[in-house]
Order: sequence, then C-alpha cells, then structure tokens
Amino acid sequence: MRSNSEEAEFLYEPSILKKLDFGKARTKFEPKISAAQPGAGLLVRPLSSDDYDKGFIQLLSQLTKGGDVSRQDFLDRFASMKRCANTYYVTVIEDTHLGRVIGSATLVVEQKFIRNCALRGKLEDVVVNDSYRGKQLGKLIISTISLLAEELGCYKISLDCKDQLVPFYTSLGYLREEGNANSMTIRF
Amino acid sequence: MRSNSEEAEFLYEPSILKKLDFGKARTKFEPKISAAQPGAGLLVRPLSSDDYDKGFIQLLSQLTKGGDVSRQDFLDRFASMKRCANTYYVTVIEDTHLGRVIGSATLVVEQKFIRNCALRGKLEDVVVNDSYRGKQLGKLIISTISLLAEELGCYKISLDCKDQLVPFYTSLGYLREEGNANSMTIRF
Repeated sequence: MRSNSEEAEFLYEPSILKKLDFGKARTKFEPKISAAQPGAGLLVRPLSSDDYDKGFIQLLSQLTKGGDVSRQDFLDRFASMKRCANTYYVTVIEDTHLGRVIGSATLVVEQKFIRNCALRGKLEDVVVNDSYRGKQLGKLIISTISLLAEELGCYKISLDCKDQLVPFYTSLGYLREEGNANSMTIRF
Repeated sequence: MRSNSEEAEFLYEPSILKKLDFGKARTKFEPKISAAQPGAGLLVRPLSSDDYDKGFIQLLSQLTKGGDVSRQDFLDRFASMKRCANTYYVTVIEDTHLGRVIGSATLVVEQKFIRNCALRGKLEDVVVNDSYRGKQLGKLIISTISLLAEELGCYKISLDCKDQLVPFYTSLGYLREEGNANSMTIRF
C-alpha cells in the first residue's frame, strides 16, 4: 500500500489536453463533446499513479489478457514510462461520480532520424467499458489521441487493427494507404 | 565540431548482439552469416555517436527524405534516444574497410500495461546500401532485429510495409495474420 504522504501524479502534463482543437477532429460529434468537455460526470486526463485503485488494469482486461498486475508492477511501469520523456501518453476517461477509469488509449511517440529527425505517433491499446456505449467515448478517446499526436509535432499517426475495425477507424480519419497498409508480425 | 576529448559511444550495449542465436533465425543463410560473423570487412553493431561522419544520414536518405540533419541534430537525437532507456536499438552494418555505415534497421521496444506489463517490438527504417546487394545483408539486419526483440523479452515484433515487400518479409518469418493485418494512418 502507498502511504498517505505520497501524492498521485500524472503520466504527462494534463494542460496539453485542454489545448486540443476539436474543430480539427476528422469526425463529427453529435452532441458536441471534446477532451475538455467530454460530458457530465466524465473527465479526460492523463493516466494517474492512483489509477490502479480506479480499475485501470481491470479495464484493460476487457481488451486482452490483463495479466496478474500488482500495484507495485503498475507503479513500476508507470515510473518507467514517465522516465522515458515525451514518449508515453496513456490517456484515460474517468467516471468522476464512481471514481472509475472507464476508457483508455495510448499514444506512443517514436523518435526517428529520418525526415529531419521526425516524430511519429502510434495509437495503441484502445478500450472503452462496454456499459458506456452510445456516449461517443470511443470516438472521443481516439480523436483525443490523434489531435495530441498532431499537437506534439508527429508527422503521422498509425495503428494496427483487425478487419472488423477498419470501417470504424476510417470514420475517424484513418486510411489504409493504397499499396502500403500491411501489418506483419512475428510472435515469440 | 566535437572536440577530440569526446569519445564515441554506442546507443546500446554491443555485447547483446554477440548473444543472438542465429540458429533460431526464421530464415536460412547461405553461406552462413550472423550478427557476430557478418562476413569479411563487415561489422554489425549498435549505432555510434560518430556515425554521422560515417555516412549514416546519407544512408537513410536512400530510404526516405533524410532531411537536412546537422551533426548537432544527430547528436541531440542520439542523446535523446539514449536517455529513453531500453527503447531504441538502432543497429547498423559498417564496411570497416571504408569506415562507412552501409546498412541500418531499428528496433523500438514499447512498454505496455497489457499482458502483464509486456514489451512489444517494432521494426522500423530498414535500409541497405544498393551497392551491397547479394550479400544477404537485408536478411541479416532484419534477422538481427527480430532475434534482438526476442532476446529482450518482447512478446512479438511487428512492422508496417508496402505490398511489394510482403513476400520478402514472409521469407523472414513475418506473417500477415488473418483478419488482423491492417495498418492505418493519418498524416498531418
């Protein structure tokens, strides 16, 4: 257990989320919501070091094998991501009434030498709690990540997905570029 | 310009390349070569801080827009990657007779919370100088990166590529997984 003297901290500076211009989002929201105004009782913010107790790992287990992650495992990974400056932007939606994390997506910013030492974004590990359907929260968290990548100076953002999700991501502005849309994998 | 008092350093610990077991490579080499024994006059090693003067940026310009990268830009990016511990594994092939970098590929190791705080590898920015064809060097650098990802504990390694490269990567063990092989992109 953490002692009360330790204060929760954010994985990245939260103020950047307020800057995002949802007028530039590549989809329409009806009703209009944004990272700054996600709807009553909801908050879009960076992952916090106290999100272990707000159900973050249980939420991820809806996505894939969450595994048996202890509080210390979570805090160690959080600290390791934070040490890797300007790289990990795990972004969550909290139901502030319940104090529970109900959505999450991650922007990973990769540093390159090509393209004049460019930055390139990757969208990873998108999940919204099933019981919050119909609130545009999938669109909201993905658009937040996309706008964040642009705000941070990435020249592109990309993702890998299953066939069944292609229409959804297309509706959010992602393209399977002709002749250049193959994701290939070796599993160990 | 760097002063003579500054010594060149590697982006990551070179000894890990000697550990890689090319018996586990998912392709055959004829004649047999490996990261430890790449052939006469060739050396496989981590990117070094003096590779700007060995033509590293010019090599990348064969791949895409290299941009106008100064020595200081290169050194800044090198230092920034190195600060991001256990993440960037830019790996090069040097022609030791000429003192030139003639091949490069990058492993980016991404930290996750899913799958019990797993690591996942990405293969990026593969290039071999055109005039070194027929020496299996593309196979060599990609197999090096793949084995390195496994050695570092990644649960998978993936890449995005153009249609025309699918057969090549298939021959090296990469799969377009059925129903799960879409790379989608927004460019800014």
